[in-house]
Amino acid sequence: MGGDFGPRLIVQASIACLKATPSLHLILVGQPSLLEELVSGLSAVERTRLSIAAASEAIGMDERPAQALRSKPDSSMRVALELVRDGKAQACVSGGNTGALMALSRFVLKTLPGIDRPAMVAAIPTHCGFCQLLDLGANVDCTAEQLYQFAVMGAVAAQTLGIARPRIALLNVGTEQIKGNQQVRQAASLLSEARGLNYVGFVEGDGLYRSEADVVVCDGFVGNAVLKSSEGLASMIGERLQALFRSGLLARLAGVLALPLLRRLRAELAPARHNGASFLGLQGIVIKSHGSAGMQGFQSAIERALSEIRHNVPERLRGQLEDLLPRSPEPPGG
Amino acid sequence: MGGDFGPRLIVQASIACLKATPSLHLILVGQPSLLEELVSGLSAVERTRLSIAAASEAIGMDERPAQALRSKPDSSMRVALELVRDGKAQACVSGGNTGALMALSRFVLKTLPGIDRPAMVAAIPTHCGFCQLLDLGANVDCTAEQLYQFAVMGAVAAQTLGIARPRIALLNVGTEQIKGNQQVRQAASLLSEARGLNYVGFVEGDGLYRSEADVVVCDGFVGNAVLKSSEGLASMIGERLQALFRSGLLARLAGVLALPLLRRLRAELAPARHNGASFLGLQGIVIKSHGSAGMQGFQSAIERALSEIRHNVPERLRGQLEDLLPRSPEPPGG
Repeated sequence: MGGDFGPRLIVQASIACLKATPSLHLILVGQPSLLEELVSGLSAVERTRLSIAAASEAIGMDERPAQALRSKPDSSMRVALELVRDGKAQACVSGGNTGALMALSRFVLKTLPGIDRPAMVAAIPTHCGFCQLLDLGANVDCTAEQLYQFAVMGAVAAQTLGIARPRIALLNVGTEQIKGNQQVRQAASLLSEARGLNYVGFVEGDGLYRSEADVVVCDGFVGNAVLKSSEGLASMIGERLQALFRSGLLARLAGVLALPLLRRLRAELAPARHNGASFLGLQGIVIKSHGSAGMQGFQSAIERALSEIRHNVPERLRGQLEDLLPRSPEPPGG
Repeated sequence: MGGDFGPRLIVQASIACLKATPSLHLILVGQPSLLEELVSGLSAVERTRLSIAAASEAIGMDERPAQALRSKPDSSMRVALELVRDGKAQACVSGGNTGALMALSRFVLKTLPGIDRPAMVAAIPTHCGFCQLLDLGANVDCTAEQLYQFAVMGAVAAQTLGIARPRIALLNVGTEQIKGNQQVRQAASLLSEARGLNYVGFVEGDGLYRSEADVVVCDGFVGNAVLKSSEGLASMIGERLQALFRSGLLARLAGVLALPLLRRLRAELAPARHNGASFLGLQGIVIKSHGSAGMQGFQSAIERALSEIRHNVPERLRGQLEDLLPRSPEPPGG
């Protein structure tokens, strides 16, 4: 029921995915009469792969997570997460309130053993390929141990994209060992000691886009600032390009020729708009579509969910955590 | 003597500025024989506005600040800063090692009364105009009081660009009051209470580029990550555009027409490459040119120094601090 454009667009995106992926079954969660109306155009065959689960409440985009948790037991978000918890769905995809989705996910699904708090990760398009950037804002203050856990989670996320031995880096203000704050330096020593992780050291913000790592780890404050400023810069450049191509006759001609190219570029680059963000570290798959992502964005989020289902991300992560976490020797402050 | 391209390019940029600005006098600091050779093409008239100050040492780009401070008493950087301290120069511009420049600046020039640590600020091109972003990496961990001081400094920097009543914002992971970490929330309450500052609240990373504020304040870890990732993204988009315009016959034609436009856009947007970064909070003007900025970048850094001299930034900041700092009532942790 959420997202900046409401359920209509989400249902359209869902139907498009259903048509494109014959193995996909979808459960739309929300107000049944509205949803029934929105899916009325589906063929009978397709309709067999789509069901509707009733939820009488919806969480607003500006609602406080704590309030959503306490006062809305029958929200569409919560019902969807309960379907995952109860094994009736393999993943939950939402375009709604991020904070509420995170709080409800932790409450309903619980974290995996060894994980303090789930992280939010997205695949950022880089010079050649993608980089899993995390955390994107779920955790503003992080200990070295949490950053270490994020590294493990990010590595599993990168593996679902086919990268067998993902290069893991910590985002820092320089690449020398002495740079950064205490948490980052301590996380670096934890990661250096961890067998089974391909830790490559520090990267700076520009290194992220130069594909210097497949996984870039930082606290949620930094990750959120990097992601959102990147989105802001990418849209500003897009607007400036459009304005340039309207700035004269020759420019207009160039613009006519360039427009399809620019559109392609735009779709490739808008960092997380294009891809869903994944909540990692939970006992279940939860994907957050960018609130303003539009239909294409929501389809991508469903595809990300499919990919995590195929790669069985929570179970794979559980296994990795069992292997890697006991070797994280230092207690906080130790 | 510093910078990624060495003294030759810096001298060329200096000569270009000297020719463009008849009131400008420059002192080149470094190895005299080399510098004499590099300026040998100057006319006698121009040569009267350029002098050379000898320094027998140079600080390497990877040298540790503490080492540069202790073991190189006659470095070009230090001699240049001493010229400012002794009133023989009105500003120091360097393309060298950032950490060493900051450490030497604090040691030689000292901070203004009430300033714990200087901040590094740059004017970031935004949707309409520029935003002063600080700190950019000089201070990785910041208290609320330091963030408050940065806000005062940033406001003065914005005023030198002709903005009478700059809108000041704190960078955060959301715009609601409850968002962010403790330092940011506490800084918000200090700023809200300060008379004489036009505090507009929190902005997110995308708001920075949407020109929601003239001054955006954050700790040096976040600012550095935002600045460098923006630089990385801008160059990646530039490269992708070039590649697109080579991807077929029509694309090449569009490219020929679009090339001058794209060059213009690139120059406008490369965040801090284009502009020097200023060290604020010192008893003197110090501008850091981006190490890889090239000739245009170094010229812009000299221009930023000229602008700060014209606006008498350190004295103006001293006055603002006297007005504003006593009203920052809470001691750290208070």
